[in-house]
Amino acid sequence: MKEIIAIIRPNKINRTKEVLDALGFSSMTANAVFGRGRQKAIVGEVTFAIQNKDLREEEGSMRYIPKRMISLVVPDEDASLVVESIMKVNKTGQIGDGKIFVCPIEDAVRVRTKESGEDAIL
Amino acid sequence: MKEIIAIIRPNKINRTKEVLDALGFSSMTANAVFGRGRQKAIVGEVTFAIQNKDLREEEGSMRYIPKRMISLVVPDEDASLVVESIMKVNKTGQIGDGKIFVCPIEDAVRVRTKESGEDAIL
Amino acid sequence: MKEIIAIIRPNKINRTKEVLDALGFSSMTANAVFGRGRQKAIVGEVTFAIQNKDLREEEGSMRYIPKRMISLVVPDEDASLVVESIMKVNKTGQIGDGKIFVCPIEDAVRVRTKESGEDAIL
Repeated sequence: MKEIIAIIRPNKINRTKEVLDALGFSSMTANAVFGRGRQKAIVGEVTFAIQNKDLREEEGSMRYIPKRMISLVVPDEDASLVVESIMKVNKTGQIGDGKIFVCPIEDAVRVRTKESGEDAIL
Repeated sequence: MKEIIAIIRPNKINRTKEVLDALGFSSMTANAVFGRGRQKAIVGEVTFAIQNKDLREEEGSMRYIPKRMISLVVPDEDASLVVESIMKVNKTGQIGDGKIFVCPIEDAVRVRTKESGEDAIL
Repeated sequence: MKEIIAIIRPNKINRTKEVLDALGFSSMTANAVFGRGRQKAIVGEVTFAIQNKDLREEEGSMRYIPKRMISLVVPDEDASLVVESIMKVNKTGQIGDGKIFVCPIEDAVRVRTKESGEDAIL
């Protein structure tokens, strides 16, 4: 199994989720994070959408950009499909399109049923 | 070492922590996330406990459910004990009980003492 | 590639970022988390900086401490430099200095350019 972690623009999360859902990947976790890539931030974006007031003030001088992080765990053979799909939805060609990371996951367990391995994620 | 990542119900976090603490695993990190599993969300829960207003509005149409994510790093030989314990506390038999993932961790360092490896996590 | 995950004090994040930036590691993600290490929390800190009211109340009895989590993905050969640099900035010698974890990352993709592997993170 692989964990696919995507750091994407906030306004792309709904469409990203819809596409993954349509492909049969409906289990995921979403979170608001602050990211900074090669661009060293675009200041205009920062003032637009930051949610966490304390984090904003504290890191204002760092020009971090609000991003969404989504994470899902998929069977090995689906990893490239999921990565490609996330790229397709999120590529605008503009700086700030985000990044995707692929991490090994050794096991997964569904708490309700105690299913483990790929049974827990499908 | 393994990182044990559990996505659980908000109302189970205190009990989960107490059990892990009693077993000697007192170092962990907690965070509020939004999750969605196979159930495609139970709408009633969403209106109950969501904390992050912007995330709620943005993702309202996605029916994400507020969850807590806890993460702890344990020696290899304790991984199954920790997973079993988290399952025991969190299993209600209802949809939404959550998931647990096991990930490899190559090293850990305690900043204060520079201890590394298992010394850093015990 | 390795993911370096550091759980550090909120008041150390700007300096940590400046140092990593100066070393050429400018891509990272930051998030507010609640942590608890061996010290079982210092209550005074909790009342000082907690941002998330719901999380605070819910976990008040757990004495979690607000922390910042930063995460960056670096080539294998830079992992120890990054860990050492984060330790240098964050070590006060007091309990609560934080922890750093090193996790394997199998691949990275820059969405805008479709660059993958180390090209995506440099």
